[in-house]
Amino acid sequence: MAQDETQVTALDLAMADPLSDETKAYFAKCEEKLGMIPNVLKAYAFDERKLRAFSDFYNDLMLGDSGLSKLEREMIAVAVSAVNHCYYCLTAHGAAVRGLSGDPAFGEEMAMNYRAAVLTEKQKAMLDFAVKLTEAPDRIEEADRQDLREHGFTDRDIWDIAAVAAFFNMSNRMASATDMRPNSAYHRMAR
Amino acid sequence: MAQDETQVTALDLAMADPLSDETKAYFAKCEEKLGMIPNVLKAYAFDERKLRAFSDFYNDLMLGDSGLSKLEREMIAVAVSAVNHCYYCLTAHGAAVRGLSGDPAFGEEMAMNYRAAVLTEKQKAMLDFAVKLTEAPDRIEEADRQDLREHGFTDRDIWDIAAVAAFFNMSNRMASATDMRPNSAYHRMAR
Amino acid sequence: MAQDETQVTALDLAMADPLSDETKAYFAKCEEKLGMIPNVLKAYAFDERKLRAFSDFYNDLMLGDSGLSKLEREMIAVAVSAVNHCYYCLTAHGAAVRGLSGDPAFGEEMAMNYRAAVLTEKQKAMLDFAVKLTEAPDRIEEADRQDLREHGFTDRDIWDIAAVAAFFNMSNRMASATDMRPNSAYHRMAR
Amino acid sequence: MAQDETQVTALDLAMADPLSDETKAYFAKCEEKLGMIPNVLKAYAFDERKLRAFSDFYNDLMLGDSGLSKLEREMIAVAVSAVNHCYYCLTAHGAAVRGLSGDPAFGEEMAMNYRAAVLTEKQKAMLDFAVKLTEAPDRIEEADRQDLREHGFTDRDIWDIAAVAAFFNMSNRMASATDMRPNSAYHRMAR
Amino acid sequence: MAQDETQVTALDLAMADPLSDETKAYFAKCEEKLGMIPNVLKAYAFDERKLRAFSDFYNDLMLGDSGLSKLEREMIAVAVSAVNHCYYCLTAHGAAVRGLSGDPAFGEEMAMNYRAAVLTEKQKAMLDFAVKLTEAPDRIEEADRQDLREHGFTDRDIWDIAAVAAFFNMSNRMASATDMRPNSAYHRMAR
Amino acid sequence: MAQDETQVTALDLAMADPLSDETKAYFAKCEEKLGMIPNVLKAYAFDERKLRAFSDFYNDLMLGDSGLSKLEREMIAVAVSAVNHCYYCLTAHGAAVRGLSGDPAFGEEMAMNYRAAVLTEKQKAMLDFAVKLTEAPDRIEEADRQDLREHGFTDRDIWDIAAVAAFFNMSNRMASATDMRPNSAYHRMAR
Repeated sequence: MAQDETQVTALDLAMADPLSDETKAYFAKCEEKLGMIPNVLKAYAFDERKLRAFSDFYNDLMLGDSGLSKLEREMIAVAVSAVNHCYYCLTAHGAAVRGLSGDPAFGEEMAMNYRAAVLTEKQKAMLDFAVKLTEAPDRIEEADRQDLREHGFTDRDIWDIAAVAAFFNMSNRMASATDMRPNSAYHRMAR
Repeated sequence: MAQDETQVTALDLAMADPLSDETKAYFAKCEEKLGMIPNVLKAYAFDERKLRAFSDFYNDLMLGDSGLSKLEREMIAVAVSAVNHCYYCLTAHGAAVRGLSGDPAFGEEMAMNYRAAVLTEKQKAMLDFAVKLTEAPDRIEEADRQDLREHGFTDRDIWDIAAVAAFFNMSNRMASATDMRPNSAYHRMAR
Repeated sequence: MAQDETQVTALDLAMADPLSDETKAYFAKCEEKLGMIPNVLKAYAFDERKLRAFSDFYNDLMLGDSGLSKLEREMIAVAVSAVNHCYYCLTAHGAAVRGLSGDPAFGEEMAMNYRAAVLTEKQKAMLDFAVKLTEAPDRIEEADRQDLREHGFTDRDIWDIAAVAAFFNMSNRMASATDMRPNSAYHRMAR
Repeated sequence: MAQDETQVTALDLAMADPLSDETKAYFAKCEEKLGMIPNVLKAYAFDERKLRAFSDFYNDLMLGDSGLSKLEREMIAVAVSAVNHCYYCLTAHGAAVRGLSGDPAFGEEMAMNYRAAVLTEKQKAMLDFAVKLTEAPDRIEEADRQDLREHGFTDRDIWDIAAVAAFFNMSNRMASATDMRPNSAYHRMAR
Repeated sequence: MAQDETQVTALDLAMADPLSDETKAYFAKCEEKLGMIPNVLKAYAFDERKLRAFSDFYNDLMLGDSGLSKLEREMIAVAVSAVNHCYYCLTAHGAAVRGLSGDPAFGEEMAMNYRAAVLTEKQKAMLDFAVKLTEAPDRIEEADRQDLREHGFTDRDIWDIAAVAAFFNMSNRMASATDMRPNSAYHRMAR
Repeated sequence: MAQDETQVTALDLAMADPLSDETKAYFAKCEEKLGMIPNVLKAYAFDERKLRAFSDFYNDLMLGDSGLSKLEREMIAVAVSAVNHCYYCLTAHGAAVRGLSGDPAFGEEMAMNYRAAVLTEKQKAMLDFAVKLTEAPDRIEEADRQDLREHGFTDRDIWDIAAVAAFFNMSNRMASATDMRPNSAYHRMAR
């Protein structure tokens, strides 16, 4: 629950020291592009192998080629994180939805209840699938995949919707398990 | 639900063709060590970048250094998959628990209800945490972490317990979302 | 889900026209003190008797005498609304927590997951009670009331904690049932 | 759980003493019309301002003009209270359904499981909406409102269905939070 | 939901015709002792072998030797049926609790929310176990059995508590699956 | 959780001693036909009247005449037991599904998630009904029965589907309440 400013999680796991040149370069790039080093990266940096595995996985998923736009991937991230009430991910990815959409209220809707947002039917189907996969993965059936196809998604798109929703079910749990604290800068972004 | 023998998921996503030399070598190593290429790897192989990101992440998590034994990591994997009723992961990792423990009934207990198994208090605390993190991540509080510390786990161990539980919350959802089919050989292993 | 800017709910219920002098005066006072007429009041204004009953009830509860501070009442309001994923109440009362606490991040924590916030033990007990009452009212027992007493709350305080939590269980449902839209000004307040 | 006969809740909150003339007159009217003062009114009477706010709100909602009959409003009250297992409200409003319908078994059906009752399709839709709003308010969507319209309800009726269901989600929680005891006379009424 | 007066369930399954002498004698005994043939027996009478298996099982469980009194067994029956919202069992066994306890309000408390009743700590532990076994059988652990022992129950008593709770989890489901209708006489008994 | 090899449950309830000739003959028949005495029978044998009532009920249900095949009844047993995470029943009846179907993987699918299996639409409807009856018996409505009829089930079949699902909701709870241990031989059967 509580920790002082210098800790990014409730676990006593110090960053590797010294950091490798590779990590230093990665963090420098974050500072340059985002104006900060996201705390999730600092949290993984107690073990640079884990940091690299996490960031490789993340960057391919959220920034790599996909039939889903970056905004759509962030919408899934936030709608999933809302189900799991994840403070870290709602803060960091809520800021991303506000920024990418240029619509602060839309970011809030994703973080509070995506059903309150004005969505295309295709986007609604995408988020309904992501949320069902979050709440009751064992109940996904062929009919759910078929519904996505009928809304215009390809099988590759379905993989990507599932992959983003599944990833945030992992990240939400890492953040909750460790009480990961978001960088305070996120709160003011794109308001 | 249904698919013919040659498909590993319900999605129409063919493996990269030709596979890169790196992937060929990796698959050859699987055949050699496991006697098969786990279907999850074939499922990711439609995009070799995704395959590599997944297997790097997985191998560090489940096979890398940790205060948790490989068996303990597999126990977490299966107890989490039981909550999520994941056919793929219960099959593949249930076989791993049977094999690593040398106790087929113990593998069944993990896959059916870990509370039916004879466990040390420390292992019970580990699985209780993993299952709470699965079912209600938003309810994890400092008291839950403290309980693990009092059972003898270090903060690094707590990270690893969380990381394995969180990862299978992702993998269970990828498998359910795509109707991933386990290799049939798992069913007969270590009975 | 969707409606044009001039509607405050998805129901076709026009405000009384003309409004009574009493309502006009009340709305003028809102404009003066808050800079806006909260949409919830416009929503009830199709029937001025209902508007008056609602605002009398609300004003006594949230602004009247109580052993709970206004901030504490708003914290309960938001923690309850987070359980119910209520877009209207999280937006309007999240702004109130940010404003009254002077701490934007604290408002976000209440709206996302109160367990992520730094709270006194007394405040934690208050919110735990409010959230249990929201999720499982039938499970409240004497032990729950006794726990509040042991944290220093009087029986009158317990009434007020219950009353605020119960009220927002009503308001969350009115907002969700009617797709009530918060004034957009809330999003920018006290950031 | 337990309290002696003279207490109406588990909280030590004495009625205002002396009661105002207004409250005395109101209680006298209750005695005359109902043969008793409902304990919920005694519970609120520790603060006559709260008593008046509650009874104004209640009387408009349950006795005021509406497209819903008084019986229909009581049916919603009881179906909602059954979900929340509220002893006070099931007892008091169960008696009302038995009395207004002239059918004791119907009152029991509402209190035990409304799905066991013989209902018109329109009434069934009304109760299905009220129960969904109770159990999962965040899942109400335009389709739910549209379903009510297609069963012949106006938008004003939808407001009233929502308002009664929402109100009893408040009242059930006040009763559970305070262990409010129903007047024993209710048990024998309209059997 | 709806059926005419002559049917005891929603299934079109006529009683064996003619009934065997054994069944006739059993039904005559019911009429004599209870003043009616409970509809559940008529429901099973389409197959007299099933009727006999059911009534043998039931009579041993609810009327045979046990450390639990008949009232305690009926209390468990009703508390379990309340969780499952079973109209048939709440009606029939609610009447039994009213009759055996001589306290109509106590019967209502069992049927609405056993936590509202004045119970000994031992009885409270008994019903808490029965309700946990109903809601989350997979979470029963040795600590739950030990808690019963510490409240003075023998291992044989624990078997009986479990057996009654488990049986009504079966009967509640038979009644709900078939829309079984209770004899209307139950409603007026022991009020 | 833990007990030594000679105990079949966590309760200290010794088998009747000496066993009656009837019980001895029954147990001898089990040994002959199954190669073992199922532990559930030993568990009930502390009271031979209970043992007989249980086995009469069970044998009629699972082995008697029915429009459902023995395999279909075992499929229901296992799908229900998977919802309830019952170690005893998943082990014993999982073995039965593997044996009767001649398809070990099919047995695993029933025990892990029946939605992963290749089923006829009729069998899928049967299991969907059984699982809904398990998870939310109060929500079964005429539409659920009608759906079974439209898939070709008679009203007698519906009774039998309900009866098997309901029975295992009882048996799962007896096994969980007493920590009943399955005979270890089940694990190796029909792999």
